[in-house]
Amino acid sequence: MAKVLCVLYDDPEDGMPTEYARDGLPKLERYPDGQTLPTPSAIDFNPGELLGSVSGELGLRSFLESQGHELVVTSDKDRDDSEFDRHLADAEIVISQPFWPAYLTEERIAKAPNLKLAVTAGIGSDHVDLDAAIAGGITVAEVTYCNSISVAEHVVMMILSLVRNYLPSHDWVRKGGWNIADCVARAYDVEGMDIGTIAAGRIGLAVLRRLAPFDVRLHYTDRHRLPDDVERELNLTFHETAQDMVPNCDVVTVNAPLHPQTRGMFNDELLGTMKRGAYLINTARGLIADRDAIVRALESGQLAGYAGDVWYPQPAPADHPWRTMPHHGMTPHISGSTLSAQARYAAGTREILESYFAGQPLRDEYLIVDGGKLAGAGAHSYSTSS
Amino acid sequence: MAKVLCVLYDDPEDGMPTEYARDGLPKLERYPDGQTLPTPSAIDFNPGELLGSVSGELGLRSFLESQGHELVVTSDKDRDDSEFDRHLADAEIVISQPFWPAYLTEERIAKAPNLKLAVTAGIGSDHVDLDAAIAGGITVAEVTYCNSISVAEHVVMMILSLVRNYLPSHDWVRKGGWNIADCVARAYDVEGMDIGTIAAGRIGLAVLRRLAPFDVRLHYTDRHRLPDDVERELNLTFHETAQDMVPNCDVVTVNAPLHPQTRGMFNDELLGTMKRGAYLINTARGLIADRDAIVRALESGQLAGYAGDVWYPQPAPADHPWRTMPHHGMTPHISGSTLSAQARYAAGTREILESYFAGQPLRDEYLIVDGGKLAGAGAHSYSTSS
Repeated sequence: MAKVLCVLYDDPEDGMPTEYARDGLPKLERYPDGQTLPTPSAIDFNPGELLGSVSGELGLRSFLESQGHELVVTSDKDRDDSEFDRHLADAEIVISQPFWPAYLTEERIAKAPNLKLAVTAGIGSDHVDLDAAIAGGITVAEVTYCNSISVAEHVVMMILSLVRNYLPSHDWVRKGGWNIADCVARAYDVEGMDIGTIAAGRIGLAVLRRLAPFDVRLHYTDRHRLPDDVERELNLTFHETAQDMVPNCDVVTVNAPLHPQTRGMFNDELLGTMKRGAYLINTARGLIADRDAIVRALESGQLAGYAGDVWYPQPAPADHPWRTMPHHGMTPHISGSTLSAQARYAAGTREILESYFAGQPLRDEYLIVDGGKLAGAGAHSYSTSS
Repeated sequence: MAKVLCVLYDDPEDGMPTEYARDGLPKLERYPDGQTLPTPSAIDFNPGELLGSVSGELGLRSFLESQGHELVVTSDKDRDDSEFDRHLADAEIVISQPFWPAYLTEERIAKAPNLKLAVTAGIGSDHVDLDAAIAGGITVAEVTYCNSISVAEHVVMMILSLVRNYLPSHDWVRKGGWNIADCVARAYDVEGMDIGTIAAGRIGLAVLRRLAPFDVRLHYTDRHRLPDDVERELNLTFHETAQDMVPNCDVVTVNAPLHPQTRGMFNDELLGTMKRGAYLINTARGLIADRDAIVRALESGQLAGYAGDVWYPQPAPADHPWRTMPHHGMTPHISGSTLSAQARYAAGTREILESYFAGQPLRDEYLIVDGGKLAGAGAHSYSTSS
């Protein structure tokens, strides 16, 4: 019988909802690439419920306990001798979400002799030291595609909001003013702009598709070139490198995993090659941008705006400078944790656990590290130092 | 020599910008329907400047004064004996913007014996009493299409922001918190939803086109059916009436002019037929929605969110309930007054004035009332009581 350690974000301050804003969720059939949605044998939750917080338990408790497994759920992950650290000592499975990541460092993995499986309830396994997982024979899996479209929608929302100066304009309503000129002196249309994505995987391509009807010029850079027909359909301009692409863009969106080639990519130097007054949206990982270089670029006017929902570390401290820098449109890390996404990644997590307990192979698309090496999705997106 | 009375919104509180966030504007060739952008003989401003406020003067002063005309620019339009009222007595041309409308009522028109031409620097002439304009032989013109795409972008931005709960989530960043569950307990993906537009003219159709790649089901109602090939391309479901359409929709966007059939359309009764937890976006005219019915629907949870940028009257008073109702994403009336749109409607206003002074006919698409009857664009969009 396995001990399953699940690290989730805290419940709402006012407690769990007793009524939700809407009844249920739209029914989706498949992911855009034809892959099926998660296929657990059953689910013990109602889609549309809050599942990602501590009380939500990803809807896993009755499933796990009915099979005799132990489920420990906590949000306590960062302080010394946290619940996470204490239970890690004999946990077989760790489940964590990118929004509230349980950082599985080399040191922690060394203290987790029973650990066999690290599941990301979401996408992105950079909170796990993949080299250490490989060395330790730990399988790392994520629920591939579960919230890619969620993030893509967040990106388009943030592009429009920055360019059109939405947030400060909404503030004028709340302040009781009607200061049209103050609102529009920094407001532009997206139409006609050049917009580029760093990486055009599931999320980046979904962003491009959603932007195509806005009568913009679309650019991308990626290690893998998109098929010709997709390039033609969306009228894409390919650039070999980010350095080649960003000087051409009014808006840049980052949709790459965090790996050694993207870490710190948006530093003073690269930002300095952008057009004055460009916008940068990063919903990928906080460490892809140099924290203080972003602040400097906003203060100097080199960037007209920065938005995204990824920070380092997470949770971001109350004094993180991205909370107070000018012209930002940040959210906490939520884009992939809508109620819609939660229903998919809770079901996907259960699918992974069912396969694991049955001794069946996990869905190949879910695998990041398996059998002591990068696997499936991991081999596409990540490189390691080994 | 004519007296031109131009009513514009106030300058920014800190004065006019000395530097703008960006350098210039993307170059556009044509409107999406192939119509040319405004074609004045010349312009006396740099596109990207703030033109819509008092100091901006729509870039008209040197053009008008070089021809011996008098230009009066004021924001003072509502109080008794306003600048607007005083100069109206001998004005030949009145120019106003929907964002800061100079209401040309029957009473005011009666006090303006010299008035020949009322220009909307923007789109929407409902601030002019069209019956009185017809009776008085006044030409009413607007800069058709100048900001249709601007508004369509605002609509998509607001749909995404309401559904994804952007504004409250951004507030958590500013408050120093990392309350993921509080952010996402009301956050959904747009994917899979049913979205419908009230009217599918230039703006409504542009909204539908921009939403099509979001994998939603699109609906519309309009007095004029769209061509078959457009319906097929966007996979649209047509409904004869708003009453038929809205019960099917998770999101409804209003893109109709204000006329007797749309005034007060979203009242308790129609709102009561919507799905519980639907979202309503109104960037058309404030009076299309019943002010207090909207507040009630948000407070009861019948609506999950309301956004838009149109109010009645404008400016909205500081105690307007839409400033403080729950789950709203309002802005002041700005969607059609981005710096991008201002460059187009300033040029279009000059085009109209050049034609008028030369005794040439105005571009047919610009005409709402001409020669004592509804004309051009007006005959399509408006009906009168006469």
